[in-house]
Amino acid sequence: MSKTYRWGIVGPGRIAHRFADAISHIKNAQLQAVASTNMQRAEDFAQKYSIPDHYDNYEQLFFNDMVDIVYVATTHNFHCDNSVCALKAGKHVLCEKPMAVNASQVKQMIKSAQSNNVFLMEAMWTRFLPMMAEVRDVIRKGTIGTPQYLHADFGVNFEFDPQSRIFNPNLAGGALLDIGIYCFALASMVLGKPSNISSSIKMTETGVDGRSTVLLEYDGGQVAVLLQAIDMETPAEALIIGSKGTIKLHRRWTSGSKYTVTVNKRTEKTYKAKTHKNGFVYQIRAVHECIDAGKTECELMSLDETLSIAETMDALRAQWGFRYPFE
Amino acid sequence: MSKTYRWGIVGPGRIAHRFADAISHIKNAQLQAVASTNMQRAEDFAQKYSIPDHYDNYEQLFFNDMVDIVYVATTHNFHCDNSVCALKAGKHVLCEKPMAVNASQVKQMIKSAQSNNVFLMEAMWTRFLPMMAEVRDVIRKGTIGTPQYLHADFGVNFEFDPQSRIFNPNLAGGALLDIGIYCFALASMVLGKPSNISSSIKMTETGVDGRSTVLLEYDGGQVAVLLQAIDMETPAEALIIGSKGTIKLHRRWTSGSKYTVTVNKRTEKTYKAKTHKNGFVYQIRAVHECIDAGKTECELMSLDETLSIAETMDALRAQWGFRYPFE
Repeated sequence: MSKTYRWGIVGPGRIAHRFADAISHIKNAQLQAVASTNMQRAEDFAQKYSIPDHYDNYEQLFFNDMVDIVYVATTHNFHCDNSVCALKAGKHVLCEKPMAVNASQVKQMIKSAQSNNVFLMEAMWTRFLPMMAEVRDVIRKGTIGTPQYLHADFGVNFEFDPQSRIFNPNLAGGALLDIGIYCFALASMVLGKPSNISSSIKMTETGVDGRSTVLLEYDGGQVAVLLQAIDMETPAEALIIGSKGTIKLHRRWTSGSKYTVTVNKRTEKTYKAKTHKNGFVYQIRAVHECIDAGKTECELMSLDETLSIAETMDALRAQWGFRYPFE
Repeated sequence: MSKTYRWGIVGPGRIAHRFADAISHIKNAQLQAVASTNMQRAEDFAQKYSIPDHYDNYEQLFFNDMVDIVYVATTHNFHCDNSVCALKAGKHVLCEKPMAVNASQVKQMIKSAQSNNVFLMEAMWTRFLPMMAEVRDVIRKGTIGTPQYLHADFGVNFEFDPQSRIFNPNLAGGALLDIGIYCFALASMVLGKPSNISSSIKMTETGVDGRSTVLLEYDGGQVAVLLQAIDMETPAEALIIGSKGTIKLHRRWTSGSKYTVTVNKRTEKTYKAKTHKNGFVYQIRAVHECIDAGKTECELMSLDETLSIAETMDALRAQWGFRYPFE
């Protein structure tokens, strides 16, 4: 039995609630502290999840000796600053996706984790889902041959609100960082780093990317097409075509458990991976296992890969001439 | 009851057999003549379908007074020449898809049809299928709102054979003209003419396009992604995402009858359009109706649209630096 890890959460928003719930399902995890710039919010969160310590600033949490790992759940624009502060204080960090708004920030974070010899990972929780493990197995076994083409869509028709995080350029809103990241991470998992990028972009009135279709090309001639939108509902399905067959991930593939494997047009079989109701538990367990093993990063969602994905997104935004106001 | 039309077929290959079978299911259609450069082939075909006249050259068929409409089923590279000869002889022409290998040839054909005041149409038979009529209805009624995104794939893993029509640049082989045309015609039907094109291309050893992924952008911000391949099997499905819902066309969408309409994530319903076992009958009936009505083109597959699709394909090949040897 591994040791019990005490978590600190900064940014007790919607996703932090889901995270806190996940912690409650994990034996060797407990919540030690929560911090918000709004004291009432910190207090309410602490009370709801019976968290011993709560603060109206992040520093106190970072310097709390009882905290082993910090979960950064603030808005994207703060991920880098918050994580670096926590890493400098010697805390391990699990940072919500996207790990940062650009590759330059990701590099800072990696450097900080390395110089402080602590663990850092992007909270790409979907990668740790049982379905994704099974899909990787199917690919590894060569069942569908070599992956050649990937299509993934993830679009949510959010109600337009210039004030909301998702439409606000100052908070690094937009489809790409918020939900597109899932598509990019899937393409990265299956096909690696692209060598060429084309795209179509539609900006919102507030100046963030509302909808984009991205065509990624890889050195071996493989192609990925990714559709992400915050102004349109899409089926939220993914398709991987290999040289011998295909894998379909059913709606919503990002949190899903159902997938269909077709080999040579003939045998088609649909599987359902047994999945915990809170899909966050898998990434949390992975973090624990890595730290138990003395690792400072997780092979399944390595820092190199997080950086590579950030670089692809940077290249894409450069094509669009799109910079966040604070960049 | 309309008059009976007598058809002449030039190029009695695989597709001509399917066409001849379709004619046998249509009351007011009959086969009058068949022509091949190979006399034995013409004779065998004539015998199989009880066709009165057969020739070892096309001219005799074009000048046969008994022939009302010529079906051009030769290889792509001959479509323009064969059609123009038939049109000049005063025959109506249904020309296999693609109507020609480039826009310049399409223009010649249109000009010839107009100056001879006869009917001309590209045999884009899929457009006339009952499923496609129903899909157009769903879109017209606004059930899925305004179409915003289209994805269509059509890939067949043909055995590589440098001699076969499909891999031969001299016969205008390649994925684009042979099966990609279906995807482009669907995108054209739903979204019109694109204003911008990006793509990924993989050529075969023989120098034709083996596989391409094409991203088409439209003036209203809509996007279509088309995947066509002659070296890889794909699911052969199509997806139309609208502002209120989606339509999925099931495998193989090009000849299919099954489609699913989803509105606002909630109501999902799968339909099966009643379809004749030979899907060619619908386009043949459409040709008859147009000619009955004295029309020289068919609104549902107009000459303007055929030209527009050819222009898009020309633009794409220009991006690839790909010309057929005879161009």
